[in-house]
Amino acid sequence: MGGRVAGPEIERLIQLLARLPGLGPRSARRAALHLIRKREELLAPLADTLRVACDKIVTCRACGNADTCDPCTLCRDERRDRDTLVVVETVADLWALERAGVLSARYHVLGGTLSPLDGMGPSDLNLASLVERVAADRVKEVILAINATVDGQTTAHYIVGLLADSKVKITRLAHGIPVGGELDYLDEGTLAAAIKSRTVF
Amino acid sequence: MGGRVAGPEIERLIQLLARLPGLGPRSARRAALHLIRKREELLAPLADTLRVACDKIVTCRACGNADTCDPCTLCRDERRDRDTLVVVETVADLWALERAGVLSARYHVLGGTLSPLDGMGPSDLNLASLVERVAADRVKEVILAINATVDGQTTAHYIVGLLADSKVKITRLAHGIPVGGELDYLDEGTLAAAIKSRTVF
Repeated sequence: MGGRVAGPEIERLIQLLARLPGLGPRSARRAALHLIRKREELLAPLADTLRVACDKIVTCRACGNADTCDPCTLCRDERRDRDTLVVVETVADLWALERAGVLSARYHVLGGTLSPLDGMGPSDLNLASLVERVAADRVKEVILAINATVDGQTTAHYIVGLLADSKVKITRLAHGIPVGGELDYLDEGTLAAAIKSRTVF
Repeated sequence: MGGRVAGPEIERLIQLLARLPGLGPRSARRAALHLIRKREELLAPLADTLRVACDKIVTCRACGNADTCDPCTLCRDERRDRDTLVVVETVADLWALERAGVLSARYHVLGGTLSPLDGMGPSDLNLASLVERVAADRVKEVILAINATVDGQTTAHYIVGLLADSKVKITRLAHGIPVGGELDYLDEGTLAAAIKSRTVF
């Protein structure tokens, strides 16, 4: 759509929507038209909600989670187990673990992984505060819920080294077959790990 | 993500984003996190742009286009051919035709098609104003750029009847093979139309 079809406001809306993950130029146009058609039900509430999010969302200084309060809802939750700390790369991973609904621990968001190629060193991650928290809160177990990628595992090993003096128990997520997964579609590494860690039926 | 992970603002943001076409619950979460991470570059501008769009976008009373001015940019454009009127179903179709960049005419947006099953009758479409415009603006050609669906073609025939007295020339888009299309993947109807309307090489 050229500038001559409509005012610059609509074009700018399409350009910004196209920068959302999962939307390209074509779907951004569809989304813009959908918003214009649903002005009262969707466009106005979304404008207000984005403004509120922009003004109110902060990063929790304790754990690195994104929330509208600091400390965040999870850090404030007194019912959560204070002995366990779950280390994740991103807020998205934190949300994914919360959806699983198994843990009732607190989190520590690293903000990425060590990655020399991308120029991410230890000082770019929330690592110093992790060591402090483990000592100050008398954490008994640190669960490394870090992605099973090369950078993720490098970061996990680095954290194990950082926490060596604290004598805290460090665990990591199990490798194995995804629930509902078919063996034929799995890579050899996952299958090997699943065989190695087999359990009694 | 349950309400206990973060404040209600983030959850509301995800719910609203999930209502955009092309985004589901999972991609809406990703989009929300992306927005939170890119607060200055994306979240704030998008909030402002949506607010402006909400306040300023109106439907052009002349043609039915969505724009920030009424009459819209296209209706105001004096360089556009005033003898030709292109009838489309939706604003999305208008944009699609403008991207093709072939026409420099004005448009008339019907706002849908006749569809007895969906309860869309002639009074639900911008049909009365079409007849008025054709007479008042002394239009010489009406191009029916309406989708080649059953409802679209019913609407086209209805419009031909409406304009029968005005003696305006009425044309419709050609049927044929899409540019870049492969014969093997085309339906019989399209192939038959393409053979019937074959042109000298």
